[in-house]
Amino acid sequence: MTRRDEIVDAALRLFAERGYAATTIVAIEEAAGFTPGAGGLYRHVRSKRELLDLALERTLTTRRAAQTDPALSEGDLRTAVTAAAHGALATFDADRDLYRLLLRGGDLPIDLDDTYDRLFQPGFDEVAAWLAHLAGDRPGLDAAAVASVALSSLCYVVVSELAYGRPPGGVDRERFVAAWVDGLVRQLEEP
Amino acid sequence: MTRRDEIVDAALRLFAERGYAATTIVAIEEAAGFTPGAGGLYRHVRSKRELLDLALERTLTTRRAAQTDPALSEGDLRTAVTAAAHGALATFDADRDLYRLLLRGGDLPIDLDDTYDRLFQPGFDEVAAWLAHLAGDRPGLDAAAVASVALSSLCYVVVSELAYGRPPGGVDRERFVAAWVDGLVRQLEEP
Repeated sequence: MTRRDEIVDAALRLFAERGYAATTIVAIEEAAGFTPGAGGLYRHVRSKRELLDLALERTLTTRRAAQTDPALSEGDLRTAVTAAAHGALATFDADRDLYRLLLRGGDLPIDLDDTYDRLFQPGFDEVAAWLAHLAGDRPGLDAAAVASVALSSLCYVVVSELAYGRPPGGVDRERFVAAWVDGLVRQLEEP
Repeated sequence: MTRRDEIVDAALRLFAERGYAATTIVAIEEAAGFTPGAGGLYRHVRSKRELLDLALERTLTTRRAAQTDPALSEGDLRTAVTAAAHGALATFDADRDLYRLLLRGGDLPIDLDDTYDRLFQPGFDEVAAWLAHLAGDRPGLDAAAVASVALSSLCYVVVSELAYGRPPGGVDRERFVAAWVDGLVRQLEEP
């Protein structure tokens, strides 16, 4: 991890905890191990706004890498779908601070529509295409809707843990994923 | 709606938008149509904290009413499951401001575990019992896990609309619910 990455991490953590507007450059300097006010941070980034852009950009890069994981298309249906669930949860876990920031709502100087189009929509589209493929492009399967339902429940696992400190209904991830896989496989297999 | 309910609404809206700590009594007085600082609000409630408690209490009452809706156990499986999806989404819609407040994280003077146990866990448990019943108490069905997956995806619809101004993956509610019902019915029907 580069020094710049460390600074982005520290900034994103503070944005998530306090909100973007309420986070000062001084607080970021302290959290990233700089002497506050001495200007060391500015050797790495130009502004608070650039730190936010870098955080979004980095998430985008990680997501692209995750989406092209070839393991997702190998093996039998149940194995592939299980691997996809764990892969998606791992991606969401890695992006926890970004989620916390976006869920806070309100004060971000970003175009939310554009951010969604770049950051989240491609994941839904990719999963929809993958599910359609797994189901043999069966007519009558609304792959985009099935992908939306399936990804939503996985997203909510992380939302629930973040917001309430508990997985949905208190069901642990192993049982959750087993039920998720079971439902999705049935929906893909049978006409 | 009583005057007290109107005040709770106004307070909860502000808590959701600004955070609990950042919301002043004066702001609540203004939002609820009182002359700020004149004391009129205190004829209805004792404190900001009481307004938060009243908001949680009211949600709890609404949820209890929704959970005992007899329509959920009537009709054929697909009809019952579809009605349940729409009923759950309507409940979550009604509680939007409370969700926004809880998703903000941070500064609430409540016991989050206790709130979850009273507000959210009973819904998961009730749906699990209902799904087990619909599936004829089939052994091998992890009804709590299926309920967790199913309710999570519905919860995330509202989270996504709140946080991003868009349903998950841009799929509208009608298609979402159709895919949700299709998956759940398959999971309940077949061994």
